[in-house]
Amino acid sequence: MKKLHSLYLFAVIISFPFNALCQSDEDMLKIIFDETLKNGHSYEMLDYLSNEIGGRLSGSPEAAAAVEWSRQEMIKLGFDTVFLQEVMVPHWVRGKKEIVRIVNSDRMGTIDLAACALGNSVGTGDQGLAANIIEVDGIESLKKLDKKKIEGKIVFFNRRMDPTRVNTFAAYGEAVDQRVYGASEAAALGAVAVVVRSMASNDDDIPHTGTLIYKEGVKQIPAFALSTNSANLLSKSLKAQQGLKLYLEAHCKMLPDVLSYNVVGEIKGSAKPNEYIIVGGHLDSWDLGDGAHDDGAGCVQSIEAVRVLKNVGYKPYHSIRAVMFMNEENGLRGGVRYAELAKQNNEKHLVAIESDRGGFTPKGFTLTGSETARAKLISWKPLFEPYGIYDFNKPGGGADISPLEEQGTALIGFLPDSQRYFNLHHTTADTFDKIDKRELELGAASMAALVYLIDKYGIDGKN
Amino acid sequence: MKKLHSLYLFAVIISFPFNALCQSDEDMLKIIFDETLKNGHSYEMLDYLSNEIGGRLSGSPEAAAAVEWSRQEMIKLGFDTVFLQEVMVPHWVRGKKEIVRIVNSDRMGTIDLAACALGNSVGTGDQGLAANIIEVDGIESLKKLDKKKIEGKIVFFNRRMDPTRVNTFAAYGEAVDQRVYGASEAAALGAVAVVVRSMASNDDDIPHTGTLIYKEGVKQIPAFALSTNSANLLSKSLKAQQGLKLYLEAHCKMLPDVLSYNVVGEIKGSAKPNEYIIVGGHLDSWDLGDGAHDDGAGCVQSIEAVRVLKNVGYKPYHSIRAVMFMNEENGLRGGVRYAELAKQNNEKHLVAIESDRGGFTPKGFTLTGSETARAKLISWKPLFEPYGIYDFNKPGGGADISPLEEQGTALIGFLPDSQRYFNLHHTTADTFDKIDKRELELGAASMAALVYLIDKYGIDGKN
Repeated sequence: MKKLHSLYLFAVIISFPFNALCQSDEDMLKIIFDETLKNGHSYEMLDYLSNEIGGRLSGSPEAAAAVEWSRQEMIKLGFDTVFLQEVMVPHWVRGKKEIVRIVNSDRMGTIDLAACALGNSVGTGDQGLAANIIEVDGIESLKKLDKKKIEGKIVFFNRRMDPTRVNTFAAYGEAVDQRVYGASEAAALGAVAVVVRSMASNDDDIPHTGTLIYKEGVKQIPAFALSTNSANLLSKSLKAQQGLKLYLEAHCKMLPDVLSYNVVGEIKGSAKPNEYIIVGGHLDSWDLGDGAHDDGAGCVQSIEAVRVLKNVGYKPYHSIRAVMFMNEENGLRGGVRYAELAKQNNEKHLVAIESDRGGFTPKGFTLTGSETARAKLISWKPLFEPYGIYDFNKPGGGADISPLEEQGTALIGFLPDSQRYFNLHHTTADTFDKIDKRELELGAASMAALVYLIDKYGIDGKN
Repeated sequence: MKKLHSLYLFAVIISFPFNALCQSDEDMLKIIFDETLKNGHSYEMLDYLSNEIGGRLSGSPEAAAAVEWSRQEMIKLGFDTVFLQEVMVPHWVRGKKEIVRIVNSDRMGTIDLAACALGNSVGTGDQGLAANIIEVDGIESLKKLDKKKIEGKIVFFNRRMDPTRVNTFAAYGEAVDQRVYGASEAAALGAVAVVVRSMASNDDDIPHTGTLIYKEGVKQIPAFALSTNSANLLSKSLKAQQGLKLYLEAHCKMLPDVLSYNVVGEIKGSAKPNEYIIVGGHLDSWDLGDGAHDDGAGCVQSIEAVRVLKNVGYKPYHSIRAVMFMNEENGLRGGVRYAELAKQNNEKHLVAIESDRGGFTPKGFTLTGSETARAKLISWKPLFEPYGIYDFNKPGGGADISPLEEQGTALIGFLPDSQRYFNLHHTTADTFDKIDKRELELGAASMAALVYLIDKYGIDGKN
């Protein structure tokens, strides 16, 4: 009888989730962080994604390679299920190198500025275009001008990101309307093209691309980013010489939509397999760099978060997914598709976590959710403080996960240090050599730790 | 009468310290951070110190240039007094490139390892030296061995920095005894030389130099750092082949002491001019890189902290000094000299702040001081939180300021993010391109803000 009893107890122990019986939360977080820092896979994965595959704009062969790579990677790591979700994505191509040239400087003659076309921009045609320039401090300033001053001109949006904003994403948010909507606002007033100061924290020679959105019913005009140094030079030159002209040339165009995929890797939940906690990033990137920080980092951290939980032997109650979203940069089609399918398949998504602010030292997590969820998130702060992670009280989520909000999913954004991000965001400088291994790993570990806590305790008070 | 009253009031206002009358502390911190982020000088100063002067080991011409540069810089910025403090410093020179070579690998023949001499090491002589190798995990492991196993051998210290330590300085502290004392411990047991695994967070091909201290009465033997990759290769090769030999060559030597200087820039206090708050870094660096992070950053942040307070119109009660200490890296003579002179001149030093952990995103400040001082420091945390600075409860100070402790000075260490520091510390990779302007500036601003608060409220409860 005694023997039988022991055997029964043993059976209970091995079938019971790992964490509940054996570990305090403090110990479990230590196990998670140690595994990530000692045996981490994220840096190696990102090396491959960045250096072997490289920039992977939606619709490109590289984006297709990234889909297949991440599918294989999650199979290799032994996730329970790995599958693709079909999604049609836009296919914009940059074409040969753009030209933005001051053609008649009294002082310097002809000067090529450091520039690139904005994403989704139409081209100029092979003949290019030349026109006078009018500088404005943003869309509001533009709208105050007499239409006659704008007609036939190139509008130069030159509002800088506010350097006194400690959160650089706030500075970005205040300045980025020029890039997204400037072209249509200017076209509506008769402009022939726009050049926009790069959304950059620093002064240098690297132009930052990024999406623009054309308003329906407004003429689509070409749009370019200037490096901050070039914007400064152009502004100074305009002050010295009213009749300054720019010659613009871009060969970009929008091709027909292409079939692509979200890539999902899943560990099945032991108690509530049809309730999901997801952790994701976006697999597409701009074409100029290799997209190491935006958002290769978020992808490999998401895969790593699930791998770590699996490898330390944690058996989740809920199903856990790593999701590689497609097409965040210029369409958000993958995020929208993911939410559609979740609804269609009656999958209850408790929480979606996104990492899309670069692979820097973690500071905390932002939340879009109920007050109960916020209180719960904040209650975990003491568990994270030994890892230098302390910021749990800011609103926010992530672009790809935002379509899940209407299904009642709590949205959580991974919040790393933001000081270096806008030196490289959407540029040729967003490359793997800018990744610090430990910073990347600490982010992955913090995401795994948060998934563990949510899985164990729930977060919206209803689990 | 009314007019006279107004005039009197006006006189009171202009003679009264700026902060006390006009600004809340929240506003004053905002003014300090905004000035630093909008009109900062630190990045430009560090560019000069790193790129024009470069590596500046004590006793070198570059160290002399750094003294003269910082003196001129603080005069240009209009500090009330700028002066030098004489100090004799050691003068160690590396000589031509070192050789650490596996000479008899069965599998690979001859292999040059990535290595450099440790600072203060003796050379091998032109003939070099060759011997068998014994690998140990640290000084404790070495001491457990039979002396016969060590005699005539090269001791290879191969304990790695613990990657699971989130605070990389803790991992450094646990491993660095091999580098500092390994040579004498090995020599005492009959070893002919030591090679030491670099104090590095990552695996790469860059050796990290750093000071060693020879024990009196023990034979001085040559000591080298191996890059982490080279240490891994050597360890693996030793496992495969017992009789492996290394050939070592180093041409370094210690020359006679040289006259050098601490450089001090001062703003006179309005109420207590003979009571001091100092903020400093060390002007010397190792010779391999340009010392941008270690500790050019600390120097320019210290100058900038004083500049900012001056430029926003703050009139301190106490005298404020920016101190560029000489010879932190291989002697600490400048720090010792500064404390001697403070005592000799009856200067009461309330607080000494040092920045010597790199120019990364600020996280907080460490303290060596009374419980009253700690409580005060922690009470200011809410003022710093809007700037992402939250860590005020750890012990610590700084090497250069440590000799002031016995005079009752509270010691404060600037605490930035530590994840990247030990990728570049004491190496050819510690160069200006690794500096982020915003990170550097946020550090300088946080130091200025702390000086302001200490000046206004005191910190040890007795001011």
